[in-house]
Amino acid sequence: MNKIEHIGIAVNDIETSNTLFHKLLGVAPYKTEEVASEGVKTSFFKTGESKIELLEAMTNDSAIAKFIAKKGEGIHHIAFEVGDIQAEIKRLKEEGFTVLNEIPKRGADNKWVAFLHPKTTNGVLIELCQEIDDKA
Amino acid sequence: MNKIEHIGIAVNDIETSNTLFHKLLGVAPYKTEEVASEGVKTSFFKTGESKIELLEAMTNDSAIAKFIAKKGEGIHHIAFEVGDIQAEIKRLKEEGFTVLNEIPKRGADNKWVAFLHPKTTNGVLIELCQEIDDKA
Repeated sequence: MNKIEHIGIAVNDIETSNTLFHKLLGVAPYKTEEVASEGVKTSFFKTGESKIELLEAMTNDSAIAKFIAKKGEGIHHIAFEVGDIQAEIKRLKEEGFTVLNEIPKRGADNKWVAFLHPKTTNGVLIELCQEIDDKA
Repeated sequence: MNKIEHIGIAVNDIETSNTLFHKLLGVAPYKTEEVASEGVKTSFFKTGESKIELLEAMTNDSAIAKFIAKKGEGIHHIAFEVGDIQAEIKRLKEEGFTVLNEIPKRGADNKWVAFLHPKTTNGVLIELCQEIDDKA
């Protein structure tokens, strides 16, 4: 794990929350992106070497819609940047963590991503992410 | 807001969770500290320029005990490093945020800290923190 890549926050309305986090962090979102496969709209703010990702559900059966229905708005996950996501998945499985995506999937912001089940990580949904290198 | 200073995670048993996060992050906690005024035991792990803080309640009426009773283990707060905590408190109040500590208090890891009420921040408990300079 190299660093905190981002913290994901589930919100009801991304336009309202973009304004709120712009005021809070003192910077505007540097990008917004729809991830159709996950049923979410996202926006990203830089803070130091990390990012804050806001997530609004686009469909009622998306993970974010279910999260908000159960717990309300709030912190959804922590993402760590890794250099070699396949090697980290293998290492973490051997350490006893439950990896939800043994084959990394394409996430927002040009990343390969894989999640660890919160039951093995103190109730915290952990995402691993590695920048996609399309030239590789 | 300069960067994510740390992410605070509420845990039932800090010894067990120290082992878990050591495996997850690949590093041991660099310090443990009791904060009697908050009724918590804490431990800190470095990750990039930020930290993960684990918090175990030492008393039943501490904020962490109440959080776990209500929501279970999980992410409790995000802390941002600021250069001038008094100026940030003033700025955020003017922006409409509810600041819980208008006078910063002494937190763990040699910091002045102040919290923003989650009702004004999308359900996210936000901490501001500034390194204490005892020579100042």
